[in-house]
Amino acid sequence: MTEVRNMYPLFSDEYYMQLALYEAEAAANAGEIPVGAVITCRQRIIAKTRNQTEQLTDVTAHAEVLAITAAADYLGSKYLKDCTLYVTLEPCVMCAGALYWSQIGRIVFGASDEKRGYSLLSQNVLHPKTTVKKGILEPEITQLLKNFFQRLRT
Amino acid sequence: MTEVRNMYPLFSDEYYMQLALYEAEAAANAGEIPVGAVITCRQRIIAKTRNQTEQLTDVTAHAEVLAITAAADYLGSKYLKDCTLYVTLEPCVMCAGALYWSQIGRIVFGASDEKRGYSLLSQNVLHPKTTVKKGILEPEITQLLKNFFQRLRT
Repeated sequence: MTEVRNMYPLFSDEYYMQLALYEAEAAANAGEIPVGAVITCRQRIIAKTRNQTEQLTDVTAHAEVLAITAAADYLGSKYLKDCTLYVTLEPCVMCAGALYWSQIGRIVFGASDEKRGYSLLSQNVLHPKTTVKKGILEPEITQLLKNFFQRLRT
Repeated sequence: MTEVRNMYPLFSDEYYMQLALYEAEAAANAGEIPVGAVITCRQRIIAKTRNQTEQLTDVTAHAEVLAITAAADYLGSKYLKDCTLYVTLEPCVMCAGALYWSQIGRIVFGASDEKRGYSLLSQNVLHPKTTVKKGILEPEITQLLKNFFQRLRT
């Protein structure tokens, strides 16, 4: 895992995305497709998860699904209206559907997923009140994914 | 819960759907939106679940997601290619996305969901190898849903 400290301003989108990126790196080191997620609620981190589909033998164990479950458990509420999800890769359709049900306030993602990203299907998968920002730390995230798949092929 | 025995021929789609319907009835009795699911693998039941979003305070705890997790755990495999999911209500986008990742062989559902069913968005949400059958025990399932929402409103 990268040992560099988080140099981004506290509470910035880059700061939280860097934490999600550390989770993604930990996933890669565990042989998982590297995706990491953080959920904040009023600037407080309430969930920090990574893709665990291999470890849990469960296709539903994407970072986002695990983060939604953990955040709702922390808040004692099914709904995440005041929360922001930071996730390194664009959510897939399953995760976007889960985010719809959670009514999450805001989604920030890093790299677009040109194969399985929800936006390929329709922008309407998300809740109408959810706002989306993308491209945060994209070069670092794309590099991590590239390295991971390159290593798989060798 | 209905005490009537399952009168459908063993191994028929109606037989398994009746079991899913019992799960849906149990969900209704627990105050959950009544949806039940069964997964079979070569005619053997390997998962039987119901919607537990209220009980678990978790929007991702739909019957289908819980069934996929349970079935994969039973088989020790992430993929459910030789399995059939029986679910009383048409899967939502989240569940259809989860079923895509599971590469499930076959989906049988009862009632269509005219508000949040995956087919409203696109048929392409599911895996290209997954086959779908619908309408099994639809009248009983629709009646259960109607009764549940009527009771909520009174």
